Amino acid sequence: MTTQELALAFTKLCKQGEFEEAGKRFWSDEVVSREPMTGEMAEAKGRAAVQAKGVWWYANHEVHSVNVEGPYVHGNQFVVRFTMDVTPKGQARLSMDEVGVYTVQDDKIVEERFFYGS
Amino acid sequence: MTTQELALAFTKLCKQGEFEEAGKRFWSDEVVSREPMTGEMAEAKGRAAVQAKGVWWYANHEVHSVNVEGPYVHGNQFVVRFTMDVTPKGQARLSMDEVGVYTVQDDKIVEERFFYGS
Repeated sequence: MTTQELALAFTKLCKQGEFEEAGKRFWSDEVVSREPMTGEMAEAKGRAAVQAKGVWWYANHEVHSVNVEGPYVHGNQFVVRFTMDVTPKGQARLSMDEVGVYTVQDDKIVEERFFYGS
Repeated sequence: MTTQELALAFTKLCKQGEFEEAGKRFWSDEVVSREPMTGEMAEAKGRAAVQAKGVWWYANHEVHSVNVEGPYVHGNQFVVRFTMDVTPKGQARLSMDEVGVYTVQDDKIVEERFFYGS
């Protein structure tokens, strides 16, 4: 599978709202997920930790809508943009605009690195 | 200067259409520019080569409009999206949708890596 094929399949699932399935299908067991912040949320290592991060996120955010754009491909990496309308638990509703840069090895995503719009 | 400050200043110039000025101000002398293709356009190394690539591009594309979104920041990297309405010389007018991932060291861009939408 080329990176472009993987990127298209992954992004198609995201566009259908099937984020969990996209991860299950394409994360490496050793996937590392990085957020642009300090502290314990900065890095999740391994499939179990990254899945737990997703569970935490959905438990703490009410998602009103998500728009997914991409993928954009270069070599063994691809980029997806996520524009979200969410209400974090106990906070005001807000728009989030971020991109993920995904690195692929052996037909699996070994790193996802999120960048926040500013 | 933080990566976020550099990213905001670089992207502001791009939004004003001042792409050449953005490069002049923020490229390292050793900047490497990478396109997702094979052949001699795949990689330009050094400020002179990257500037020449820009000159070539403008000589070979009539630009009708450019929309710039971003920046998106993570650590020492940032992402900018470019949506362009262009006519390549001798070809049909088309829409281009791509993102650049920029890597910063010592207040300069040392790599720009372009990803094409698909």
